[in-house]
Amino acid sequence: MEEAKGVVKLVALAKFKEGLSESEIEQLIKGYANLVNLIDPMESFHWGKDVSIENMHQGFTHIFESTFNSTEGVAEYVAHPAHVDFANLFFSHVDKFLVFYYKPTTVRV
Amino acid sequence: MEEAKGVVKLVALAKFKEGLSESEIEQLIKGYANLVNLIDPMESFHWGKDVSIENMHQGFTHIFESTFNSTEGVAEYVAHPAHVDFANLFFSHVDKFLVFYYKPTTVRV
Repeated sequence: MEEAKGVVKLVALAKFKEGLSESEIEQLIKGYANLVNLIDPMESFHWGKDVSIENMHQGFTHIFESTFNSTEGVAEYVAHPAHVDFANLFFSHVDKFLVFYYKPTTVRV
Repeated sequence: MEEAKGVVKLVALAKFKEGLSESEIEQLIKGYANLVNLIDPMESFHWGKDVSIENMHQGFTHIFESTFNSTEGVAEYVAHPAHVDFANLFFSHVDKFLVFYYKPTTVRV
């Protein structure tokens, strides 16, 4: 098994509160994406809506995935004022939120 | 916002049952990775353990991420006997499991 050098991925799952409009959600997603421009060790970002056919997504509606250059980069991101401000705004609009950090590992079998 | 043509990603989060050994977990991960060899529309696979510093991972210990060539490819994967057999084995070893399918979308801001 090979562990990618340094890279750390963050997967965040969210269920937005009822009553939030599509354009409000789009603004929040753009705010999340904009962190790439503000926080150096955050290298990329993409997101998506649940398109499950198995109904095992436990009510989460959106996913956000970002990549960092290192474990130290994650610590810098977590403590960065732009992240703290955005997280406070974001949390006020979600019913459920889950965050998972990991170092992606590939398996050859 | 741009949606990647066709590609669907699957993020699965798991908490393995207490008492499962590291080598048993490694066997399950290899079995999961081997689905890439058995199921055509499954294009790639990687996994990782939680390395959170925020403690918002709700007890999940492992993540598995795979990529499919299309929505139809996902349906083929879900119904494929190799997936069904593996999923039955896998489910018997987890306390918690969550699956989220999405079409990755990039945002330029």
